[in-house]
Amino acid sequence: MRGARRPDTLFWADSSRIAGNRLSLDPDESRHLLRVFRAEPGTPFEATDGAGTRYRCRLVEDHHGEARAEIEEREEGVGELPAPVHLLVGLPDSRAAEVIVEHAVPLGVASILFAACRRSGRDELGEAKLERLGRIAIAGVKQSLRSRLPILGTTATLSAALEAAGQGPRLLADPAGPAQFTIPPEGHQAPITIAVGPPGGFDEGEEAALRASGFQRISLGPSRLTTETASIAALVTIRNAIIYNQLRRI
Amino acid sequence: MRGARRPDTLFWADSSRIAGNRLSLDPDESRHLLRVFRAEPGTPFEATDGAGTRYRCRLVEDHHGEARAEIEEREEGVGELPAPVHLLVGLPDSRAAEVIVEHAVPLGVASILFAACRRSGRDELGEAKLERLGRIAIAGVKQSLRSRLPILGTTATLSAALEAAGQGPRLLADPAGPAQFTIPPEGHQAPITIAVGPPGGFDEGEEAALRASGFQRISLGPSRLTTETASIAALVTIRNAIIYNQLRRI
Repeated sequence: MRGARRPDTLFWADSSRIAGNRLSLDPDESRHLLRVFRAEPGTPFEATDGAGTRYRCRLVEDHHGEARAEIEEREEGVGELPAPVHLLVGLPDSRAAEVIVEHAVPLGVASILFAACRRSGRDELGEAKLERLGRIAIAGVKQSLRSRLPILGTTATLSAALEAAGQGPRLLADPAGPAQFTIPPEGHQAPITIAVGPPGGFDEGEEAALRASGFQRISLGPSRLTTETASIAALVTIRNAIIYNQLRRI
Repeated sequence: MRGARRPDTLFWADSSRIAGNRLSLDPDESRHLLRVFRAEPGTPFEATDGAGTRYRCRLVEDHHGEARAEIEEREEGVGELPAPVHLLVGLPDSRAAEVIVEHAVPLGVASILFAACRRSGRDELGEAKLERLGRIAIAGVKQSLRSRLPILGTTATLSAALEAAGQGPRLLADPAGPAQFTIPPEGHQAPITIAVGPPGGFDEGEEAALRASGFQRISLGPSRLTTETASIAALVTIRNAIIYNQLRRI
Protein backbone atom coordinates (compact mmCIF):
# COMPACT_ATOMS: atom_id res chain seq x y z
CA MET A 1 0.00 0.00 0.00
CA ARG A 2 2.97 2.34 -0.52
CA GLY A 3 0.89 4.47 -2.89
CA ALA A 4 -1.96 5.09 -0.45
CA ARG A 5 -3.53 8.55 -0.46
CA ARG A 6 -2.08 10.91 2.15
CA PRO A 7 -4.78 12.20 4.54
CA ASP A 8 -5.30 15.97 4.16
CA THR A 9 -4.95 16.44 7.91
CA LEU A 10 -2.07 17.26 10.21
CA PHE A 11 -1.99 14.84 13.12
CA TRP A 12 -0.93 15.68 16.64
CA ALA A 13 1.78 13.70 18.45
CA ASP A 14 3.30 15.33 21.49
CA SER A 15 6.91 14.62 22.31
CA SER A 16 6.07 11.79 24.74
CA ARG A 17 4.86 9.83 21.71
CA ILE A 18 8.05 10.20 19.72
CA ALA A 19 11.09 7.98 20.23
CA GLY A 20 13.89 7.82 17.70
CA ASN A 21 12.29 7.23 14.32
CA ARG A 22 9.06 5.89 15.82
CA LEU A 23 5.89 7.85 16.54
CA SER A 24 2.49 6.82 17.88
CA LEU A 25 -0.81 8.68 17.99
CA ASP A 26 -3.10 9.06 21.00
CA PRO A 27 -6.52 7.33 20.96
CA ASP A 28 -8.40 10.25 19.32
CA GLU A 29 -5.81 10.84 16.64
CA SER A 30 -5.40 7.10 16.04
CA ARG A 31 -9.14 6.72 15.57
CA HIS A 32 -9.09 9.61 13.12
CA LEU A 33 -6.28 8.13 11.04
CA LEU A 34 -7.36 4.47 11.24
CA ARG A 35 -11.16 4.78 11.19
CA VAL A 36 -12.02 8.07 9.45
CA PHE A 37 -9.27 7.86 6.86
CA ARG A 38 -9.18 4.00 6.96
CA ALA A 39 -5.40 4.17 6.72
CA GLU A 40 -3.61 0.88 6.03
CA PRO A 41 0.02 0.05 6.85
CA GLY A 42 2.13 2.03 4.39
CA THR A 43 -0.15 5.07 4.28
CA PRO A 44 1.87 8.29 4.49
CA PHE A 45 0.71 11.06 6.85
CA GLU A 46 2.08 14.13 8.58
CA ALA A 47 2.16 14.96 12.25
CA THR A 48 3.43 17.77 14.43
CA ASP A 49 4.67 17.74 18.00
CA GLY A 50 3.58 21.35 18.58
CA ALA A 51 7.19 22.11 19.49
CA GLY A 52 8.24 23.24 16.02
CA THR A 53 8.78 19.96 14.17
CA ARG A 54 6.71 18.49 11.35
CA TYR A 55 7.07 14.73 10.86
CA ARG A 56 6.49 12.96 7.57
CA CYS A 57 5.46 9.48 8.63
CA ARG A 58 4.30 6.18 7.24
CA LEU A 59 1.86 3.99 9.14
CA VAL A 60 3.49 0.75 10.31
CA GLU A 61 0.67 -0.91 12.20
CA ASP A 62 -2.69 -0.62 13.88
CA HIS A 63 -1.70 -1.92 17.33
CA HIS A 64 -5.03 -2.59 19.10
CA GLY A 65 -6.31 0.75 17.81
CA GLU A 66 -3.07 2.71 18.33
CA ALA A 67 -1.53 4.04 15.14
CA ARG A 68 2.20 3.34 15.15
CA ALA A 69 4.34 4.91 12.48
CA GLU A 70 7.84 5.32 11.20
CA ILE A 71 9.27 8.81 10.85
CA GLU A 72 10.76 9.28 7.39
CA GLU A 73 11.57 12.96 7.54
CA ARG A 74 11.56 15.88 9.97
CA GLU A 75 11.17 19.52 9.04
CA GLU A 76 11.54 22.47 11.40
CA GLY A 77 9.30 25.53 11.61
CA VAL A 78 6.84 24.65 8.84
CA GLY A 79 4.00 27.17 8.73
CA GLU A 80 5.68 29.40 11.34
CA LEU A 81 6.50 33.10 11.19
CA PRO A 82 10.19 34.07 11.02
CA ALA A 83 9.92 35.86 14.39
CA PRO A 84 7.72 35.20 17.42
CA VAL A 85 4.77 37.57 17.92
CA HIS A 86 3.33 37.74 21.42
CA LEU A 87 -0.12 39.10 22.27
CA LEU A 88 -0.78 40.69 25.65
CA VAL A 89 -4.55 41.09 25.87
CA GLY A 90 -6.65 42.79 28.53
CA LEU A 91 -8.97 39.94 29.52
CA PRO A 92 -12.39 40.13 27.81
CA ASP A 93 -15.32 37.74 28.40
CA SER A 94 -14.87 34.02 27.74
CA ARG A 95 -16.42 34.01 24.28
CA ALA A 96 -14.20 36.89 23.14
CA ALA A 97 -11.12 35.11 24.52
CA GLU A 98 -12.07 32.05 22.49
CA VAL A 99 -12.50 34.14 19.34
CA ILE A 100 -9.02 35.57 19.84
CA VAL A 101 -7.48 32.09 20.22
CA GLU A 102 -9.48 30.74 17.24
CA HIS A 103 -8.07 33.36 14.88
CA ALA A 104 -4.71 34.25 16.43
CA VAL A 105 -3.39 30.70 16.48
CA PRO A 106 -3.80 30.12 12.71
CA LEU A 107 -2.32 33.59 12.20
CA GLY A 108 0.88 32.45 13.86
CA VAL A 109 0.85 33.95 17.36
CA ALA A 110 3.63 32.64 19.62
CA SER A 111 1.85 33.32 22.90
CA ILE A 112 -1.29 34.96 24.23
CA LEU A 113 -1.26 36.31 27.75
CA PHE A 114 -4.69 37.33 29.07
CA ALA A 115 -4.21 39.90 31.83
CA ALA A 116 -7.16 40.72 34.08
CA CYS A 117 -7.10 44.52 33.94
CA ARG A 118 -8.98 47.07 36.01
CA ARG A 119 -11.72 47.38 33.40
CA SER A 120 -11.86 43.65 32.64
CA GLY A 121 -14.46 43.29 35.40
CA ARG A 122 -13.43 39.70 35.99
CA ASP A 123 -10.70 37.60 37.56
CA GLU A 124 -7.94 35.94 35.61
CA LEU A 125 -8.90 32.82 33.64
CA GLY A 126 -9.49 29.68 35.67
CA GLU A 127 -7.92 26.30 34.98
CA ALA A 128 -10.97 24.95 33.12
CA LYS A 129 -11.18 27.92 30.79
CA LEU A 130 -7.46 27.82 30.05
CA GLU A 131 -7.77 24.13 29.21
CA ARG A 132 -10.66 24.86 26.87
CA LEU A 133 -8.58 27.56 25.16
CA GLY A 134 -5.72 25.07 24.96
CA ARG A 135 -7.92 22.63 23.05
CA ILE A 136 -8.95 25.40 20.66
CA ALA A 137 -5.27 26.22 20.17
CA ILE A 138 -4.36 22.61 19.30
CA ALA A 139 -7.24 22.50 16.79
CA GLY A 140 -5.95 25.77 15.33
CA VAL A 141 -2.39 24.45 14.93
CA LYS A 142 -3.68 21.35 13.15
CA GLN A 143 -6.12 23.23 10.93
CA SER A 144 -3.59 25.89 9.93
CA LEU A 145 -0.72 23.43 9.39
CA ARG A 146 1.57 25.22 11.84
CA SER A 147 4.13 23.28 13.81
CA ARG A 148 4.37 25.15 17.09
CA LEU A 149 1.67 25.29 19.77
CA PRO A 150 1.35 28.81 21.17
CA ILE A 151 1.67 29.30 24.91
CA LEU A 152 -1.52 30.51 26.59
CA GLY A 153 -1.43 32.19 29.96
CA THR A 154 -3.28 34.50 32.29
CA THR A 155 -2.33 36.92 35.04
CA ALA A 156 -4.33 38.63 37.78
CA THR A 157 -2.99 42.08 36.90
CA LEU A 158 -1.40 43.95 34.02
CA SER A 159 1.78 44.47 36.02
CA ALA A 160 2.19 40.72 36.47
CA ALA A 161 1.81 40.39 32.69
CA LEU A 162 4.43 43.08 32.11
CA GLU A 163 6.87 41.23 34.33
CA ALA A 164 6.27 38.09 32.28
CA ALA A 165 6.61 39.87 28.90
CA GLY A 166 9.63 38.98 26.80
CA GLN A 167 12.30 41.19 25.32
CA GLY A 168 12.14 42.85 21.89
CA PRO A 169 10.01 45.63 20.42
CA ARG A 170 6.77 46.35 22.25
CA LEU A 171 3.70 47.94 20.69
CA LEU A 172 0.43 49.13 22.16
CA ALA A 173 -2.75 49.25 20.06
CA ASP A 174 -4.18 52.70 20.77
CA PRO A 175 -6.87 54.41 18.67
CA ALA A 176 -5.25 57.75 19.53
CA GLY A 177 -1.77 56.57 18.54
CA PRO A 178 0.09 57.33 15.32
CA ALA A 179 -0.65 55.28 12.20
CA GLN A 180 2.90 54.05 12.04
CA PHE A 181 5.41 52.07 13.95
CA THR A 182 9.12 51.67 13.77
CA ILE A 183 11.09 48.69 14.90
CA PRO A 184 14.86 48.83 15.04
CA PRO A 185 16.40 46.91 12.12
CA GLU A 186 17.75 44.26 14.47
CA GLY A 187 14.14 43.74 15.56
CA HIS A 188 13.16 41.98 12.35
CA GLN A 189 13.88 38.56 13.73
CA ALA A 190 13.40 39.49 17.38
CA PRO A 191 10.26 38.66 19.32
CA ILE A 192 7.61 41.39 19.14
CA THR A 193 4.94 41.95 21.79
CA ILE A 194 1.73 43.80 21.09
CA ALA A 195 -0.68 44.85 23.83
CA VAL A 196 -4.43 45.29 23.31
CA GLY A 197 -6.70 46.71 25.99
CA PRO A 198 -9.69 44.96 27.59
CA PRO A 199 -13.23 46.11 26.72
CA GLY A 200 -13.27 49.75 27.82
CA GLY A 201 -9.52 49.98 27.40
CA PHE A 202 -6.54 50.12 29.73
CA ASP A 203 -7.01 52.69 32.50
CA GLU A 204 -4.63 55.60 32.99
CA GLY A 205 -2.39 53.81 35.47
CA GLU A 206 -2.12 50.80 33.19
CA GLU A 207 -1.31 52.99 30.18
CA ALA A 208 1.43 54.67 32.18
CA ALA A 209 2.82 51.27 33.17
CA LEU A 210 2.81 50.16 29.53
CA ARG A 211 4.64 53.30 28.41
CA ALA A 212 7.14 52.88 31.25
CA SER A 213 7.74 49.33 29.98
CA GLY A 214 8.63 50.64 26.53
CA PHE A 215 5.35 50.02 24.69
CA GLN A 216 5.13 52.26 21.63
CA ARG A 217 1.62 53.30 20.56
CA ILE A 218 0.23 52.34 17.17
CA SER A 219 -3.19 53.11 15.74
CA LEU A 220 -5.04 50.29 14.02
CA GLY A 221 -7.20 52.70 12.03
CA PRO A 222 -10.06 55.18 12.16
CA SER A 223 -12.80 53.02 13.71
CA ARG A 224 -13.27 51.72 17.24
CA LEU A 225 -12.49 48.02 17.54
CA THR A 226 -13.50 45.46 20.14
CA THR A 227 -10.75 43.70 22.08
CA GLU A 228 -11.08 40.64 19.87
CA THR A 229 -11.13 42.45 16.52
CA ALA A 230 -8.24 44.68 17.62
CA SER A 231 -6.22 41.64 18.73
CA ILE A 232 -6.63 39.98 15.34
CA ALA A 233 -5.94 43.22 13.45
CA ALA A 234 -2.84 43.93 15.53
CA LEU A 235 -1.52 40.44 14.92
CA VAL A 236 -2.11 40.63 11.16
CA THR A 237 -0.38 44.01 11.08
CA ILE A 238 2.75 42.64 12.75
CA ARG A 239 2.54 39.37 10.82
CA ASN A 240 2.49 41.28 7.56
CA ALA A 241 5.41 43.45 8.62
CA ILE A 242 7.40 40.28 9.30
CA ILE A 243 6.24 38.33 6.26
CA TYR A 244 6.89 41.16 3.90
CA ASN A 245 10.15 41.76 5.78
CA GLN A 246 9.55 45.43 5.53
CA LEU A 247 8.39 47.86 8.15
CA ARG A 248 6.05 50.67 7.43
CA ARG A 249 7.29 54.16 7.99
CA ILE A 250 5.26 57.16 6.95
CA MET B 1 -29.71 70.58 30.99
CA ARG B 2 -27.26 71.90 28.41
CA GLY B 3 -24.38 70.32 30.29
CA ALA B 4 -25.84 66.79 30.35
CA ARG B 5 -23.43 63.91 29.84
CA ARG B 6 -23.19 62.73 26.24
CA PRO B 7 -24.07 59.01 25.89
CA ASP B 8 -21.03 56.95 24.83
CA THR B 9 -23.07 55.36 22.04
CA LEU B 10 -23.61 56.12 18.39
CA PHE B 11 -27.32 56.08 17.59
CA TRP B 12 -28.84 54.94 14.34
CA ALA B 13 -31.19 57.15 12.33
CA ASP B 14 -31.75 56.17 8.73
CA SER B 15 -32.40 58.88 6.19
CA SER B 16 -36.20 58.56 6.44
CA ARG B 17 -35.86 59.97 9.98
CA ILE B 18 -33.90 63.06 9.00
CA ALA B 19 -35.57 66.21 7.68
CA GLY B 20 -33.74 69.52 7.54
CA ASN B 21 -32.17 70.06 10.93
CA ARG B 22 -34.52 67.63 12.68
CA LEU B 23 -33.89 63.97 13.42
CA SER B 24 -35.92 61.32 15.22
CA LEU B 25 -34.97 57.87 16.48
CA ASP B 26 -36.89 54.64 15.93
CA PRO B 27 -38.56 52.92 18.90
CA ASP B 28 -35.52 50.79 19.86
CA GLU B 29 -33.04 53.62 19.61
CA SER B 30 -35.43 56.03 21.35
CA ARG B 31 -35.83 53.59 24.25
CA HIS B 32 -32.06 53.27 24.47
CA LEU B 33 -31.51 57.04 24.61
CA LEU B 34 -34.52 57.93 26.78
CA ARG B 35 -34.68 54.93 29.13
CA VAL B 36 -31.19 53.43 29.33
CA PHE B 37 -29.33 56.75 29.28
CA ARG B 38 -32.29 58.66 30.83
CA ALA B 39 -31.58 61.53 28.46
CA GLU B 40 -33.43 64.79 29.20
CA PRO B 41 -34.15 67.57 26.69
CA GLY B 42 -30.84 69.28 26.00
CA THR B 43 -28.74 66.11 26.21
CA PRO B 44 -26.21 65.97 23.36
CA PHE B 45 -25.77 62.74 21.42
CA GLU B 46 -24.43 61.50 18.10
CA ALA B 47 -26.18 59.55 15.38
CA THR B 48 -25.33 58.16 11.97
CA ASP B 49 -27.53 57.55 8.97
CA GLY B 50 -25.33 54.71 7.71
CA ALA B 51 -24.90 56.65 4.48
CA GLY B 52 -21.70 58.43 5.45
CA THR B 53 -22.88 61.25 7.71
CA ARG B 54 -22.41 61.61 11.46
CA TYR B 55 -24.89 63.97 13.16
CA ARG B 56 -24.16 65.83 16.38
CA CYS B 57 -27.60 66.32 17.90
CA ARG B 58 -29.30 67.64 20.98
CA LEU B 59 -32.47 66.05 22.35
CA VAL B 60 -35.48 68.35 21.97
CA GLU B 61 -38.28 66.20 23.34
CA ASP B 62 -39.53 62.79 24.34
CA HIS B 63 -42.63 62.68 22.11
CA HIS B 64 -44.66 59.72 23.44
CA GLY B 65 -41.47 57.68 23.61
CA GLU B 66 -39.95 58.92 20.35
CA ALA B 67 -36.70 60.84 20.76
CA ARG B 68 -36.81 64.01 18.64
CA ALA B 69 -33.65 66.02 18.24
CA GLU B 70 -32.11 69.03 16.60
CA ILE B 71 -29.07 68.53 14.36
CA GLU B 72 -26.32 70.93 15.36
CA GLU B 73 -23.53 69.68 13.13
CA ARG B 74 -22.92 67.19 10.32
CA GLU B 75 -19.63 65.49 9.57
CA GLU B 76 -18.91 63.30 6.56
CA GLY B 77 -16.99 60.03 6.54
CA VAL B 78 -16.14 59.80 10.24
CA GLY B 79 -14.51 56.46 11.04
CA GLU B 80 -14.32 55.50 7.35
CA LEU B 81 -11.35 54.38 5.29
CA PRO B 82 -10.09 56.75 2.57
CA ALA B 83 -10.96 54.21 -0.15
CA PRO B 84 -13.68 51.53 -0.32
CA VAL B 85 -12.55 47.94 0.24
CA HIS B 86 -14.85 45.23 -1.08
CA LEU B 87 -14.76 41.59 0.03
CA LEU B 88 -15.82 38.83 -2.34
CA VAL B 89 -16.10 35.70 -0.22
CA GLY B 90 -16.78 32.13 -1.26
CA LEU B 91 -19.83 31.35 0.87
CA PRO B 92 -18.96 29.41 4.05
CA ASP B 93 -21.47 28.12 6.64
CA SER B 94 -23.79 30.58 8.41
CA ARG B 95 -21.74 30.92 11.57
CA ALA B 96 -18.58 31.69 9.57
CA ALA B 97 -20.47 34.28 7.50
CA GLU B 98 -21.55 35.95 10.73
CA VAL B 99 -17.99 35.97 12.05
CA ILE B 100 -16.85 37.68 8.86
CA VAL B 101 -19.53 40.37 9.15
CA GLU B 102 -18.84 40.84 12.88
CA HIS B 103 -15.17 41.64 12.29
CA ALA B 104 -15.13 43.07 8.77
CA VAL B 105 -17.71 45.78 9.45
CA PRO B 106 -15.75 47.40 12.31
CA LEU B 107 -12.64 47.04 10.15
CA GLY B 108 -14.23 49.28 7.54
CA VAL B 109 -15.35 46.99 4.73
CA ALA B 110 -17.48 48.75 2.08
CA SER B 111 -19.31 45.62 0.91
CA ILE B 112 -19.29 41.88 1.39
CA LEU B 113 -20.54 39.69 -1.42
CA PHE B 114 -21.01 36.04 -0.48
CA ALA B 115 -20.81 33.94 -3.62
CA ALA B 116 -21.99 30.34 -3.49
CA CYS B 117 -19.03 28.58 -5.11
CA ARG B 118 -18.66 25.01 -6.31
CA ARG B 119 -17.03 23.92 -3.04
CA SER B 120 -19.39 25.97 -0.84
CA GLY B 121 -21.72 22.98 -0.73
CA ARG B 122 -24.72 25.24 -0.20
CA ASP B 123 -27.01 27.67 -2.01
CA GLU B 124 -26.67 31.42 -1.85
CA LEU B 125 -27.86 33.08 1.38
CA GLY B 126 -31.60 33.31 1.89
CA GLU B 127 -33.52 36.44 2.78
CA ALA B 128 -33.70 35.63 6.50
CA LYS B 129 -29.96 35.02 6.78
CA LEU B 130 -29.13 38.19 4.88
CA GLU B 131 -31.41 40.13 7.23
CA ARG B 132 -29.66 38.62 10.23
CA LEU B 133 -26.29 39.61 8.78
CA GLY B 134 -27.71 43.08 8.15
CA ARG B 135 -28.56 43.46 11.83
CA ILE B 136 -25.02 42.36 12.78
CA ALA B 137 -23.68 44.95 10.33
CA ILE B 138 -25.73 47.79 11.88
CA ALA B 139 -24.53 46.78 15.34
CA GLY B 140 -20.97 46.78 13.99
CA VAL B 141 -21.29 50.27 12.50
CA LYS B 142 -22.62 51.61 15.81
CA GLN B 143 -20.04 49.83 17.95
CA SER B 144 -17.10 50.84 15.77
CA LEU B 145 -18.27 54.47 15.34
CA ARG B 146 -18.27 54.24 11.55
CA SER B 147 -20.72 56.25 9.48
CA ARG B 148 -21.39 54.07 6.47
CA LEU B 149 -23.33 50.80 6.48
CA PRO B 150 -21.63 48.22 4.28
CA ILE B 151 -23.66 46.59 1.53
CA LEU B 152 -24.19 42.86 2.00
CA GLY B 153 -25.10 40.63 -0.88
CA THR B 154 -25.08 37.09 -2.16
CA THR B 155 -24.92 35.40 -5.55
CA ALA B 156 -25.63 31.87 -6.72
CA THR B 157 -22.31 31.56 -8.54
CA LEU B 158 -18.86 33.10 -8.61
CA SER B 159 -19.41 34.36 -12.14
CA ALA B 160 -22.48 36.33 -11.03
CA ALA B 161 -20.33 37.86 -8.29
CA LEU B 162 -17.60 38.75 -10.80
CA GLU B 163 -20.17 40.53 -12.96
CA ALA B 164 -21.28 42.52 -9.91
CA ALA B 165 -17.72 43.39 -8.81
CA GLY B 166 -16.69 47.04 -9.06
CA GLN B 167 -13.75 48.60 -10.83
CA GLY B 168 -10.31 49.17 -9.33
CA PRO B 169 -7.51 46.84 -8.25
CA ARG B 170 -8.50 43.22 -7.61
CA LEU B 171 -6.65 40.83 -5.34
CA LEU B 172 -7.06 37.14 -4.67
CA ALA B 173 -5.97 35.60 -1.36
CA ASP B 174 -4.00 32.53 -2.37
CA PRO B 175 -1.66 30.57 -0.08
CA ALA B 176 0.50 29.80 -3.13
CA GLY B 177 0.63 33.44 -4.25
CA PRO B 178 3.52 35.85 -3.78
CA ALA B 179 3.93 37.70 -0.46
CA GLN B 180 3.52 41.02 -2.16
CA PHE B 181 1.05 43.05 -4.07
CA THR B 182 1.26 46.12 -6.18
CA ILE B 183 -1.52 48.55 -6.85
CA PRO B 184 -1.09 51.25 -9.46
CA PRO B 185 -0.45 54.65 -7.81
CA GLU B 186 -3.84 55.92 -8.95
CA GLY B 187 -5.32 52.99 -7.05
CA HIS B 188 -4.65 54.52 -3.67
CA GLN B 189 -8.07 56.13 -3.47
CA ALA B 190 -9.79 53.74 -5.86
CA PRO B 191 -12.00 50.93 -4.66
CA ILE B 192 -10.13 47.67 -4.03
CA THR B 193 -11.74 44.23 -4.20
CA ILE B 194 -10.25 41.20 -2.51
CA ALA B 195 -11.51 37.67 -3.11
CA VAL B 196 -11.26 34.87 -0.54
CA GLY B 197 -12.18 31.28 -1.37
CA PRO B 198 -14.87 29.17 0.34
CA PRO B 199 -13.85 26.31 2.65
CA GLY B 200 -11.81 24.03 0.40
CA GLY B 201 -10.95 26.94 -1.87
CA PHE B 202 -12.02 28.08 -5.31
CA ASP B 203 -11.92 25.26 -7.84
CA GLU B 204 -9.79 25.41 -10.99
CA GLY B 205 -12.49 26.90 -13.19
CA GLU B 206 -13.25 29.57 -10.61
CA GLU B 207 -9.56 30.42 -10.24
CA ALA B 208 -9.27 30.80 -13.99
CA ALA B 209 -12.33 33.07 -14.02
CA LEU B 210 -10.80 35.20 -11.25
CA ARG B 211 -7.51 35.52 -13.12
CA ALA B 212 -9.37 36.38 -16.32
CA SER B 213 -11.15 39.12 -14.36
CA GLY B 214 -7.84 40.66 -13.36
CA PHE B 215 -7.49 39.30 -9.84
CA GLN B 216 -3.84 39.37 -8.75
CA ARG B 217 -2.77 36.67 -6.26
CA ILE B 218 -1.45 37.59 -2.83
CA SER B 219 -0.30 35.27 -0.05
CA LEU B 220 -1.52 36.02 3.44
CA GLY B 221 1.33 34.10 5.03
CA PRO B 222 2.81 30.68 5.73
CA SER B 223 -0.14 28.99 7.46
CA ARG B 224 -3.47 27.71 6.14
CA LEU B 225 -6.36 29.98 7.09
CA THR B 226 -10.09 29.33 7.22
CA THR B 227 -12.36 31.40 5.02
CA GLU B 228 -13.29 33.64 7.94
CA THR B 229 -9.75 34.18 9.27
CA ALA B 230 -8.46 34.78 5.73
CA SER B 231 -11.24 37.31 5.06
CA ILE B 232 -10.32 39.29 8.17
CA ALA B 233 -6.58 39.05 7.48
CA ALA B 234 -7.05 40.14 3.87
CA LEU B 235 -9.15 43.10 4.93
CA VAL B 236 -6.63 44.20 7.57
CA THR B 237 -3.84 43.88 5.01
CA ILE B 238 -5.59 46.19 2.55
CA ARG B 239 -6.84 48.48 5.32
CA ASN B 240 -3.27 48.94 6.54
CA ALA B 241 -2.01 49.61 3.03
CA ILE B 242 -4.61 52.36 2.72
CA ILE B 243 -4.24 53.78 6.23
CA TYR B 244 -0.53 53.90 5.98
CA ASN B 245 -0.94 55.20 2.45
CA GLN B 246 1.94 53.08 1.39
CA LEU B 247 1.92 49.86 -0.55
CA ARG B 248 4.27 47.06 0.16
CA ARG B 249 6.65 46.03 -2.53
CA ILE B 250 9.35 43.50 -1.93
